[in-house]
Amino acid sequence: MDGLDVMTLAVTDVDTARRFYLDGLGLTPLVDLPGEIVFLQLNHGLAVALWDADKLAADMEQPPGSVVPGQGFTLARNVGSEAEVDALVERARAAGAKVLKEPQPAAFGGYHAYLRDPAGLRWEICYNPGWSVDGGGTVHLQEVS
Amino acid sequence: MDGLDVMTLAVTDVDTARRFYLDGLGLTPLVDLPGEIVFLQLNHGLAVALWDADKLAADMEQPPGSVVPGQGFTLARNVGSEAEVDALVERARAAGAKVLKEPQPAAFGGYHAYLRDPAGLRWEICYNPGWSVDGGGTVHLQEVS
Repeated sequence: MDGLDVMTLAVTDVDTARRFYLDGLGLTPLVDLPGEIVFLQLNHGLAVALWDADKLAADMEQPPGSVVPGQGFTLARNVGSEAEVDALVERARAAGAKVLKEPQPAAFGGYHAYLRDPAGLRWEICYNPGWSVDGGGTVHLQEVS
Repeated sequence: MDGLDVMTLAVTDVDTARRFYLDGLGLTPLVDLPGEIVFLQLNHGLAVALWDADKLAADMEQPPGSVVPGQGFTLARNVGSEAEVDALVERARAAGAKVLKEPQPAAFGGYHAYLRDPAGLRWEICYNPGWSVDGGGTVHLQEVS
């Protein structure tokens, strides 16, 4: 429930990126689906996800090719309920953000929206009942159905 | 000393971005130089910086136009000494990263290097004696000369 909970990086090849983040930076995987998606513990309460650029674009309802691997990314902020997603999206819209995907049930089982802020950054506003952070700052991700 | 200490976002107009991060997202400024650069507290021990895209490119010794506002960004990891910057850069190089700017004294008074990881992400590896994080996770930034 900080300002930033997940940073999703758009990559061409999840496995190449995965190797570097494990071996080169020494990060610890939280959810590890080789070839699919990898979540790594980055900081206190903060995960980084490595995901195929076109799958990330599709999740945002944006055309293929619109997210550039190595440049494209989204920032995610998790809130406590579907109503909080709706409220934060309206607050951001009022402050000048463009809503790319209106709040709705998400493929992973939670509820989310995407927006682009006036600086051009893409944010996912998310309610994920499977997300928690323990007292030491370690992120726990459980599948929700 | 987490995996990520600062995320620097490349923007076209610092003041437009600044207004959104203050009013739209409710973040707190740490260092606020309107029209120049703004650091905001994002998370426990993590700051986000809003900086002109071409100034960021110049700091990395990359050509103007090479960092796309709203898409371009760098991630920074702070370590405890100049020797630790050198060591982490060598570790990353051995793991396949391309060094964009070899370790050297930085304009802000510390010591740093930039690299591009195999997924295409740009990291600044930094020793900044003016950086500290208190027990509550708040970042403190002091000028160093």
